[in-house]
This record gives sequence, structure tokens and C-alpha cells, in this order.
Amino acid sequence: MSEAENVQVVIVGSIGLDTIETPFEKREELLGGSVSYACAAASFYTGVGMVGVVGSDFHDDYMALYKQFGIDLEGLQCVEGRTFRWSGVYDADMINRKTLSTELNVFEQFMPVMPPRYRAARYILLGNIAPELQLHVLDQVDAPEFVVADTMDLWINIARDKLVEVIGRVDMLMLNDSEARLLTDQYHLRRCAETIRAMGPEYVVIKKGEHGAMLFGPDGLFLVPAYPVDAVTDPTGAGDTFAGAMMGHLAQNGGVSDGTMRAALLHGAVVASHGVEAFSLDRLASLTAEDIDTRFAELKAMVAV
Amino acid sequence: MSEAENVQVVIVGSIGLDTIETPFEKREELLGGSVSYACAAASFYTGVGMVGVVGSDFHDDYMALYKQFGIDLEGLQCVEGRTFRWSGVYDADMINRKTLSTELNVFEQFMPVMPPRYRAARYILLGNIAPELQLHVLDQVDAPEFVVADTMDLWINIARDKLVEVIGRVDMLMLNDSEARLLTDQYHLRRCAETIRAMGPEYVVIKKGEHGAMLFGPDGLFLVPAYPVDAVTDPTGAGDTFAGAMMGHLAQNGGVSDGTMRAALLHGAVVASHGVEAFSLDRLASLTAEDIDTRFAELKAMVAV
Repeated sequence: MSEAENVQVVIVGSIGLDTIETPFEKREELLGGSVSYACAAASFYTGVGMVGVVGSDFHDDYMALYKQFGIDLEGLQCVEGRTFRWSGVYDADMINRKTLSTELNVFEQFMPVMPPRYRAARYILLGNIAPELQLHVLDQVDAPEFVVADTMDLWINIARDKLVEVIGRVDMLMLNDSEARLLTDQYHLRRCAETIRAMGPEYVVIKKGEHGAMLFGPDGLFLVPAYPVDAVTDPTGAGDTFAGAMMGHLAQNGGVSDGTMRAALLHGAVVASHGVEAFSLDRLASLTAEDIDTRFAELKAMVAV
Repeated sequence: MSEAENVQVVIVGSIGLDTIETPFEKREELLGGSVSYACAAASFYTGVGMVGVVGSDFHDDYMALYKQFGIDLEGLQCVEGRTFRWSGVYDADMINRKTLSTELNVFEQFMPVMPPRYRAARYILLGNIAPELQLHVLDQVDAPEFVVADTMDLWINIARDKLVEVIGRVDMLMLNDSEARLLTDQYHLRRCAETIRAMGPEYVVIKKGEHGAMLFGPDGLFLVPAYPVDAVTDPTGAGDTFAGAMMGHLAQNGGVSDGTMRAALLHGAVVASHGVEAFSLDRLASLTAEDIDTRFAELKAMVAV
């Protein structure tokens, strides 16, 4: 999609081979991981570079798919060993899931390295990895305009101090409602967001799954709607897709303001809603700019008063 | 608020003395019931008449409160015996609750009667009572412009046929997400709504508690936001307050169109958000038109893209 030289957004995260069971279907060794979803989503808007690691068993066609999206792969490390694997099963509601197994494999020794070409990127998305690695990335960048970190309950529980350090160094923290409550020991989401903003980031996005998200920032509160899909096939990676599309749209539209941020979050919701209609990156692989624009207009009309 | 002659909206439902326990407080014999909340909410917009029943033990100050709201009470039956009582306890999340006891008392023999003055009312809200009673009300009205029915899982389970008859005779069915799924045996809410619209009503509102609601109608889908309150004191009656304010606003603004409907639902969300900030009708009793307008503008800004 973009020239290799033009990396506007850099995304760091996990790459996994996912085995996923839903009430309707079981699929094995699917391409997954936060950075796969987020880079694919960002690629619709701007030049995006991937920082991650795969093992020597990584599938050629998955590598081809990254290239099809136009993702810059200079930051992708290919090392001896097995790729990270995750397997999980979704409940009947297709929302709650249980992890069946996690094999870290090459991800266990992962140390993200920013290629020199990436260091001047203006937009950095720190996907959900250990806070220590997120800090390591922050130490390698020049002066990005906008840095977003995602996180999860695991890091809140086992690496809170490092996570707090990350939170103090980013412009936006993105997390889901239960994580926001766990992190702040508050219940009401407006209070959670206030507490987090006092820790550093100008913006906080609290995700509520199929109920959308809330943006808390200097311009007040924005209720991000979720696009109501007819049927969810696989919700894995929806949050990463949401974040990636948001970053891509911000970069494409020249920076962060209240207006660009609201539109960027709506784009995040739109691309994520397409993504959950199929397993892995299957739907994103066939998605067009027109599909995005059509659903964006539809979603905008659904919230117009 | 309005002259007794000018009853634009008629609301039928239950009146109860509620004993409510939250994680923070227990309150006894509070004024409750669907018609209390809905009439109070509608009274901010237009003349509203109440159809319900209380026993001889009903508190004088509650009757005075109805009058303070300007509610027309000609349809309120006061009969020998004890008033309906309900008690429940809320979980820590203040969303899920458990019913501890229900005493039907005078409500058991309730037969709603529309005073002649009410029969030409243009807006009818059938609060959550037995479908047979809702049908009995429909048999007593002339040619209302807009009839809305609320319902609950109990009636879906024990009186489905009568409920289906009600649904076939109203313009809007309002119910929550789990009820919509139970009624239609579908999971995705857009499919639930399609199924219900095929049963008769032009409009379906599916309520999702603190996540807002969805309006399905001839002009497409509208995602109704919930106003994010700082702290919920008592969520009892929020759905009834929402419905009452919606009806009042529609009546005040001269009828049903896509534009008036969207604004009316936002007003519903706003008045309901005030209502949950205190027990019973306590917050509504001190609410002003200015409070409503302020929060309406705030909520509208929270969804603007």
C-alpha cells in the first residue's frame, strides 16, 4: 500500500499461530497476534512498520499476506525455533473466552528492536506485551507525536510498577473496562479514566467490547459506538484492529485533535466490525477502502441526533 | 405542570412500595412501580395521566408527590387493602439484582379502567403488566397516534400468546436485550429486532442498561447512548423513566418522525441518568427543565462525530 521508506506508524506486539474454537467452528494455526491485526488495520490508511518476532516454522503464506497488506517488515525478526502459539475457546455468547494453552516459544526471548528507519515515526502503538518491552521500545524512538499503549490484566497483576512507568510516558492508554477497574481500584469508568489520566496520558480509551468504547481526553468525553454486526464469526483481535485503524487514520489525517480523534475512533470501530466477521485476517484481506467508507457513513448516521 | 383537562400521554402500569438494598444502603417502602417512574418522567414535557392501583395504606406524601409532578390522577384507583410491595437486592455492580419478595396485594385484582377523558389521548404507554391487562387498555382507547408496550421475561414465559397479540397491536415494543433474545430465540440484536418488527410494531427499542439502547425503525437503526453517570445510587425504574421521558418528549414535539424519535430517546436517556442518582423519585422531584437541557446538550456532544 505504501512505499517501504514511508513508515508513519510503527506497531510493536505479538505474532501468534492461534487455534480458536467457537460454538460453530474450530480453526487451527491461524495467523494472529496483536501486531498482525493492528498492522493490517493501519495499512488501509498509511505506511506501517511491524516490530515483532516469528519462528522458523512461520508459514510462508502468512508472510505473503503481510506483504499483501503492504506492511513494512524490516522490524520483523525471524529467529530459529517455534512461533508463539495460543489456543482458546469462546462461550456461546462469542464474547467471553477461555485460554486453553499458551506456548511462548520464540516470544519468550523477544527483545523489540526498532530499525533506524522507524525511529523517526510519528505514531507508535505499543501493543499488548510486557511493560518492560514497551519501555525498551520507548527508549529507541526520537520524538514521536503520539504514542499509544495497550495492556492487559496479566501485566496489571504481575508488572504493575513497570506498567505505571509506561503509562507515565505515553499519550494514550487503551484498555478494557475490567482492566481499567483492576488498574485503578475504582468502579465507575469516568473515575477510572480520571485516575489514569492523572498518571500521565492525555487520552484514555476504555473499551467495552460489543458495547463500544469511551474516549476521555482534553476535549471531554466521546462515546465511541460499536457497529452492530449481524453475526460475529471470531472476535479475536478486535481490540488490536480497532487500535491499528485508529492510529492509521490519525497519521493519514495529519495529527491529533478532537475532530481527527473522534473520526479515527469511529474508523477503528468500523474496521474492527469487519474483522470479526471472519477468522484471523480473512475479512481484512478482502476489505476495500470503499467498504470502510460505506460502513463509516452508516455508523455515523446511526449516532446522529 | 399541566391542566387536568390536557392529558396527552396516558401511562398504565404498576405502583409499588419498594424495599431496596444496594451494596451501600437499604431503604424501605420507597415509592416505586413502572407507572410512578414513567409518569414522573413524562410530566417534564406534557400533561400525563396515570392508570394504576394503590391500597388504603398508600402513603399520603407519595400521593402529594404525584400531584407535585402535576400527574393527572383520575385513572388512579384507590381500593381497600394493601398496596403492591416488592423487595430486591442489587449486586456489587449495581446492575444485576435479585428479587427477595413480591406481594401482589391489591395489584392482583387490578383491572385498568381508562377514564373517558383519557380515551382520546394520542400517546399510550403500556408499562410492564400482564399482556391481558395491556390488551384490556387497548380495547378502551379511540385511535391513539402512538402506542408503546413494555414487557418482561415473566410474560414471555407464561403468557406468550397474549403478549404476541399485544405486540401485533402496538407501534413500538420496548424490552431489554435478554428479553428480546428470549422472545425471538435469536442472539444477534439486529435479528431479534427484525423478527419483532415482523410481528407488527414499526419500532423496536432494545435496552442494554448502562450501555444504552438501540432503536430499530423505518428510518434504520439509531444507537441510543447512555449518559455515563459518576455514580449510580439506585437503578430501579431506569427503564420506565426512559420510556416516560421519551413519550413526553414525543407528545410535546408534535409527533413521531425520525428526528423527533432520536431526540426523544436521548431525552429518555438523560432523564433516566438523573433518576438513578438517587433512590425512588427523589432526584426527579428536584429536577428542572434546565438540568435536562444541560445534560441533553452534554450527551449530544458526547456522540457528535
